[in-house]
Amino acid sequence: MTQNNDTVKLIGSWSSPYALRARVALHLKSVKYEYLDEPDVLNSKSELLLKSNPIYKKVPVLIHGDVSICESLNIVQYVDEAWSSGPSILPSHPYERANARFWALFVDDKIFGSLDAVGGAKDDEGRMAAAGKLMECLATLEEAFQKSSKGLGFFGGENIGFLDIACGTILGPVSVIEAFSGVKFLREETTPGLIQWAEKFRAHEAVKPYMPTVEEFIAFAKKKFGVE
Amino acid sequence: MTQNNDTVKLIGSWSSPYALRARVALHLKSVKYEYLDEPDVLNSKSELLLKSNPIYKKVPVLIHGDVSICESLNIVQYVDEAWSSGPSILPSHPYERANARFWALFVDDKIFGSLDAVGGAKDDEGRMAAAGKLMECLATLEEAFQKSSKGLGFFGGENIGFLDIACGTILGPVSVIEAFSGVKFLREETTPGLIQWAEKFRAHEAVKPYMPTVEEFIAFAKKKFGVE
Repeated sequence: MTQNNDTVKLIGSWSSPYALRARVALHLKSVKYEYLDEPDVLNSKSELLLKSNPIYKKVPVLIHGDVSICESLNIVQYVDEAWSSGPSILPSHPYERANARFWALFVDDKIFGSLDAVGGAKDDEGRMAAAGKLMECLATLEEAFQKSSKGLGFFGGENIGFLDIACGTILGPVSVIEAFSGVKFLREETTPGLIQWAEKFRAHEAVKPYMPTVEEFIAFAKKKFGVE
Repeated sequence: MTQNNDTVKLIGSWSSPYALRARVALHLKSVKYEYLDEPDVLNSKSELLLKSNPIYKKVPVLIHGDVSICESLNIVQYVDEAWSSGPSILPSHPYERANARFWALFVDDKIFGSLDAVGGAKDDEGRMAAAGKLMECLATLEEAFQKSSKGLGFFGGENIGFLDIACGTILGPVSVIEAFSGVKFLREETTPGLIQWAEKFRAHEAVKPYMPTVEEFIAFAKKKFGVE
């Protein structure tokens, strides 16, 4: 229950959008940590990963002293609460905190749900339906962005925050699905704010070192799915 | 974004385990509120519910002044952060907070997932598999209880806390499935701590006024599913 030493380790995987969340949070708080990469985490998991996340056996896992913290949004909140260095990641006002948490859940539930449904559809009809749902969810997220960002560029306003970190993870998967399907999901007509935000997010100094480029994501996905 | 008056309303539904979470949290913080019941929320939703939770259209929704907060665990955290009256609902130590949040997610994901799978199974084979999974999850939760409670009775130790509130919601559905199947899921051999905890939780002064009894839950479910 106590962190009897300051050792911080993060188990992640290069292509994991969820691991990216933890890395961005640790960077924002200027936390020094050892990064342990699981290069092929879907097929081969280290003993340390299995031991430190026995329930889900997934990255990311944050190991702080003698405790392990699992689930990416939970890690981001832990990092925000355990280190007072750097800016706050969650907003300070209770309603804004609740709003950020609500939309982060929306991303994990509805947007990742739609992304999985597009990828896993058995036929064109199913794929079209799932793609329509994804478009709809992104348009809803655009509305949330317009309200939260108040024209200042990030979901968190002037600065990157909890909801930016939560949403940033969709960019890789969306770009892969766009490349594979030839369909644009982030469009000027429906998601102009998100398009501008995505550019700012990718370029942010706490994100850029850890986020693969669109080209790297696509090359990775093509190799993974055996597509030329 | 601001609560320009102190009006607090909660939209709930008598039988909703999720609405129960919000009621317990508000009671713990001694918050006065108007309770608005949706008696048949699966079939008929009020205009206010549709307007205040347009994404999920589900109870509970907390309306505080001019803002709405949705999703039960999100509401519990909001209540904890917005009212300094009463005891803290989340633990104070960052690791303990992360631990409580992790297991609360486990309840919503794995335990409610298994409960739904038992209820929705198409044949006996599917039902047996889902029931086995539910037993396994409850045994895992028992381990978490033993570690978190430190022999003091609640997940939160001496006092009821975030994880107690999250877990309390499984008691109604589990008792219904036990009654319908004739199988005991909370057993002395596998979940002795949870059995004792369930009794303490039900009897707690912040829970008792809002939680239907086992008999009421079963009568409700029989009526709902047309079972004699």
